[in-house]
Amino acid sequence: MSDERILLAHGSGGQLMSELIDRVFRARFGPHLSRDDSTLLSAGGAIAFTTDSFVVDPLFFPGGDIGRLAVCGTVNDLATAGAVPIALSASFILAEGLLLRDLERVADSMASAATEAGIEIVTGDTKVVPAGAADRMFITTSGIGRVVRPVSGAGARPGDVVLINGSIGDHGIAVISQREGLSFETTIESDCAPLAGLVQEALNAGGEGVHAMRDPTRGGLVSSLNEIAAQSRVAIELNEVSLPIRPPVASACEMLGFDPLYVANEGKMLFLVAAEAAESILAAMRRSRYGAEAVTIGRVLDGPAGTVTLRTALGTHRFLDPLVGELMPRIC
Amino acid sequence: MSDERILLAHGSGGQLMSELIDRVFRARFGPHLSRDDSTLLSAGGAIAFTTDSFVVDPLFFPGGDIGRLAVCGTVNDLATAGAVPIALSASFILAEGLLLRDLERVADSMASAATEAGIEIVTGDTKVVPAGAADRMFITTSGIGRVVRPVSGAGARPGDVVLINGSIGDHGIAVISQREGLSFETTIESDCAPLAGLVQEALNAGGEGVHAMRDPTRGGLVSSLNEIAAQSRVAIELNEVSLPIRPPVASACEMLGFDPLYVANEGKMLFLVAAEAAESILAAMRRSRYGAEAVTIGRVLDGPAGTVTLRTALGTHRFLDPLVGELMPRIC
Repeated sequence: MSDERILLAHGSGGQLMSELIDRVFRARFGPHLSRDDSTLLSAGGAIAFTTDSFVVDPLFFPGGDIGRLAVCGTVNDLATAGAVPIALSASFILAEGLLLRDLERVADSMASAATEAGIEIVTGDTKVVPAGAADRMFITTSGIGRVVRPVSGAGARPGDVVLINGSIGDHGIAVISQREGLSFETTIESDCAPLAGLVQEALNAGGEGVHAMRDPTRGGLVSSLNEIAAQSRVAIELNEVSLPIRPPVASACEMLGFDPLYVANEGKMLFLVAAEAAESILAAMRRSRYGAEAVTIGRVLDGPAGTVTLRTALGTHRFLDPLVGELMPRIC
Repeated sequence: MSDERILLAHGSGGQLMSELIDRVFRARFGPHLSRDDSTLLSAGGAIAFTTDSFVVDPLFFPGGDIGRLAVCGTVNDLATAGAVPIALSASFILAEGLLLRDLERVADSMASAATEAGIEIVTGDTKVVPAGAADRMFITTSGIGRVVRPVSGAGARPGDVVLINGSIGDHGIAVISQREGLSFETTIESDCAPLAGLVQEALNAGGEGVHAMRDPTRGGLVSSLNEIAAQSRVAIELNEVSLPIRPPVASACEMLGFDPLYVANEGKMLFLVAAEAAESILAAMRRSRYGAEAVTIGRVLDGPAGTVTLRTALGTHRFLDPLVGELMPRIC
């Protein structure tokens, strides 16, 4: 294994930077990675445009790493908008001294997530800062996509049902456990995954019946549902007994004092859909790679606009307020 | 003056983050800043897509700050591709403890540079990391633009002349002087400026006579010309006596041991144009806000492909090789 490290000169705009880009990025992201400062693309009509920075600590965790996260996060934001991804950009802030093999491993993982999502990384940037000015590696990805059917957080209506493609809380708990060196009987893996395919399947099956979508990342399920409830001016009720939470995640949350409803996911999508379309959408999700465990978890009510409540196993209700403070820093 | 500081909770994805976005960003970037994770835009035909991270130290320097730099850098990359900017994204990595008023000042400056360039910041992201994990503030901007006339670094031809819109080396020396606490008789100001207007004027005046463009940022004039010489498979000769270098920049470079030909610019554009179009392009540049001092600095020869030489005041020639090491870290 090589112990080569990133040097300040790798960020110089000169020969060494260009060699680094060829060796690490062009070799993995493919021949369409632009040699100019921008890349040319063709896009007819409406396009979606999104960006996210990734600062996750540690860089590598069970089920993923910062690179897979950066690609999936942006692909999923485009998917949430009802767009088919066209292209991604990737901008790196590297600390001097970073192991080159760690950068290569991250780039491998970005390339493989991009291939899976059917998208290419076409432009980028690399800055190197002295050790101490940044913690190893930050990645910012931006994406553009062709809008197939515009979906926002504002379209949910009373009578809709709330669907999700699987268990919640896995990503946040996987990262925290790795960072804190906690070990559980079962390794908890991040759910980090590109959901462009799943969303297209759901949109094809549900058509106009898909009223709102959102990927419940930072702030978890409750924060995303609060945003939708506010934007759509509806009340949303979750059914506690239907919430898919893996037992090891539930135990870890209890031990660490986290509420899994607020823990970040990176491979989940919420669909708020017309009741009559729900079964065919669920069936389509279950046929898709990341949707085998898709379930109904709640419904949209004509109640106080902007509220999210939990109907507990006992039949009582409690309000699920949006997150105010910071639950877990550097989870994505 | 308020001493409010950024908290980890400002990056939580919850209530505090949403308040920060409203107060700092939406108030300045305008009503089109998306509330969803991506924004919808309309773009017919060919589009240019670019991204850059900014890690400049210090955050504020004579003639600009990290915010103006982040907007201008991306606007200029789009302009270089012959594209009219459509929209920008801005993603922030903030260190806990950053003064909120510094963030507001940077956002003000981004808004004003964007207004000047006739573009809006339409989507973004905010991450907060614990103090020590990042140095105050990093910004990554991405941009998309509608391609009016595709121009790359590959179009230069023997017989072309090389034009630039003004003096070189100002940005790098302004930042280094501020960082190192150096003072000179005259304050050296960064040339940081959005060049979308200037480029459109030059393209309108020069039409098909504009063969290649590039903004000589990191690595300076020589690195950009080496890239063009390599991509276009031509030789480029600079004329030393024509190079516009302000006397205080020349003195500072001599004192600090820098070659101004390799020092970063942030408000300059190189045009490689057909000789017969040069005068009308120069005239158009000189009428534009950031082109009053536009001059011819060299020519393209049918010499050894990929080389850049300097014809000195004495009539001798020397090769100007691309930058290998790092001249100045954290200059942009």
